[in-house]
Parts: sequence; structure tokens; C-alpha cells
Amino acid sequence: MGNNDKKIITISREFGSGGRLIGKRLAEKLDVPFYDKQLLDRIAEESGFSKEMIKGAEMKAKNSFLYSLASAMGTSENGPESLSLNERFFLAQFDTIRRIADEGSCVIVGRCSDYVLRGLPEASHIFIYAEEKDKIKRAVQEYGIPEDEARKLMRDTDKARANYYAYHTGRKWGEHVNYSLSIDSGYIEIEDIVDLIVQYTKVRRFSQA
Amino acid sequence: MGNNDKKIITISREFGSGGRLIGKRLAEKLDVPFYDKQLLDRIAEESGFSKEMIKGAEMKAKNSFLYSLASAMGTSENGPESLSLNERFFLAQFDTIRRIADEGSCVIVGRCSDYVLRGLPEASHIFIYAEEKDKIKRAVQEYGIPEDEARKLMRDTDKARANYYAYHTGRKWGEHVNYSLSIDSGYIEIEDIVDLIVQYTKVRRFSQA
Repeated sequence: MGNNDKKIITISREFGSGGRLIGKRLAEKLDVPFYDKQLLDRIAEESGFSKEMIKGAEMKAKNSFLYSLASAMGTSENGPESLSLNERFFLAQFDTIRRIADEGSCVIVGRCSDYVLRGLPEASHIFIYAEEKDKIKRAVQEYGIPEDEARKLMRDTDKARANYYAYHTGRKWGEHVNYSLSIDSGYIEIEDIVDLIVQYTKVRRFSQA
Repeated sequence: MGNNDKKIITISREFGSGGRLIGKRLAEKLDVPFYDKQLLDRIAEESGFSKEMIKGAEMKAKNSFLYSLASAMGTSENGPESLSLNERFFLAQFDTIRRIADEGSCVIVGRCSDYVLRGLPEASHIFIYAEEKDKIKRAVQEYGIPEDEARKLMRDTDKARANYYAYHTGRKWGEHVNYSLSIDSGYIEIEDIVDLIVQYTKVRRFSQA
């Protein structure tokens, strides 16, 4: 597939909304690689956190809130060694996502991928969410989480996601302006959402107008 | 069409996003009545602001912020005559939208219709938005608004919409939780958005699960 046909979909999602499954099935139907947190983490680890890679990623990430903060604190001037392990890992993932996007069409779930690939014409960012009752139902029925734990786990996970997103991007997680499509998965079957998104990728513009 | 097949779509939209046109074309394709601001205003006016109607609507609207405010100020205890003309008109529209929803399937644009019909299983609420450049382009090319005026008109209109919505509903206009689908219309043709929504209405659940 030539670069002109490149279509990258990022999926950001609330815990229990089925977002990861939607992403996985979408990648299967589009016949493109699928990258979730596990895979992105592994690739970032295997890249070895090389200084050159982190410095390169740091320059690309310079508009993010984290690096405004790091600059204000003077840490970026001291070089990548002075960043915390978390911050270096975020940079490694940032770089991983950029390199994945360079390679071709794919589906990426989470890890602030919508922010990393913001403004890239070949990328479309989708947000999957649901009402609490639907997310708890999925957590109990699909993930096997006990009901009395599901609500707390759901809230803690999404709170952590929102904080992680805000810290690394300076934006508000879930806000419609970050995405080109947001879907409540509580009223529609997973496979039907996947088919809708496949349809969307056929008619949406993925290049500079 | 029996009541079990009733499907109501409300469209909330940013100025210049094409939301009204999407609603109109959607109603045509679904072969259902289409209600926009003009029509809703006329129906509300023709209803004559009867005291009985306003009182009935007032009771249904009792959860809205407006009526918490009115109650706190003591105005609702004095009866509908003590409400301002704007408040009475909102109540007339509230009642109009409820009655339209009782009648059958339809598409309704704006007027806080998503809030009025919140929780109604037969209703699905959609938000249409776009980036500023796309909205200005539409305002200039489709609405014939001079470019130097388009930006200000766009911002003023959406600011008024957001304030109207907040005042009458206590919620934040545009927030994903208010809707089951949000679409950026800047990357996709109007007819393709309409077809996507038609597809959505075929697979989305419109009844109590």
C-alpha cells in the first residue's frame, strides 16, 4: 500500500467500554497491524532507551506540557539522564508510536497516541466510552471482575488515564476536540461499531485537502 | 410504524459544522419529520403559551438548572406568570419537543432537545462539530458570510449556544457524555456522514435492553 493510502486509527477509551477489543477487531477487518499497550511497552523496552532516541523524541515532544514543565524545572537542559524513569519511558513510547506511524497503516490503542499523532492527516482519532452501568456490566461479564470491585477499578483506571493524558499532553482526556469520532459503546454491539468504523475509514479524508 | 420501532435522533451542532443540513438530509433518508429551530419556534408560538401547558412543562422540567434557580428565587411558587418571556418560551419549546417525541420517529436539531429527551431509550443524541478552519470555510462558501465576519459570528453563536444550554440544562454543551455519537464533519462529506448515521440507526439499540 502506497503512502497515499496510509490510514492510521488511534483508539482512546474508557475502561470497560470495549475499546481495546474494538481496536483489535478493527485491525483484523482492515488487515493492518494492531498495537496495544502491551506491545507498545515491549517495543519501547526493547529499544533500550538509547540516549539518541530519547533526545530525538524529546525534541518532537517539545510542545507537550510535560516538557514545558521539565524545561521550567531545568531538567531538560541537563539532558535525558535527569528525566525520571517514567518520563524516559513516555519518550520511548512517543518515539515508538511515531516510528510505527511512519511504517504504514495500523490501529493503535491508548498511550496518548492521538496526541503523539495529532495533526497527522493520515491519522484519525476515535474515542470509545459508555455509561457506568454498561462498563460495569462488561467488566463483570467479559473481564470476570467481581461486581463490588468493578466500580472502583473502573474509576481508578480512568482517573489514572485522565491524569496520565493531562500530564503528558496538557489536554483534557475525552474532550471531543481531540478526536474525529466519539462513540458510546453501550447501545450497539462491538461488531457493529467495528463495521461502522470500517465504513468511516472508507469515506473519511486521510490526506491533506 | 409501531411504537417499538420509534427512533428519534437529536442533532446538536457547532455553527458552520453542517449539523442542520445533516439533520435535514437524515430525516429525508429515514423518511421521518424534521424539526429545526424555525419549526420548533413556530409550534411553540402557535401553542399560545397556555398556562396549563407551561405548568405541565414546568413540572417535567423540574430537574433542570433553570428551575432549581427559579425555585431558589421563589419565582416558580408564584406561578408561570412570574417567569420571564424567555423562560416561558423555553418551557413552551420543552413541551413541544416532548409532544413531538410522543408522536413518533423524527429528527430534531438543537433547542436542547438532547436534554429534553435525555434518558428516553428511543432517542439517540448526536453532536456535530468541526475545526475552526472548516467551519469558517462552510460559513463563507455555503452560507455566503464574508470571511472577516465569519470568525466572530461563529464564536458568538457557539458561545450563545453553550450559555443557553448551560442555563437551561445545568450541563456543558458539547461534552461527550450528553451524546451517543460525536462526529467531526471537517474530514468527511455531508452525504457520507448522513449515510453513516443511517447505518448507525439500523444497528443501535433504541429500546430498553
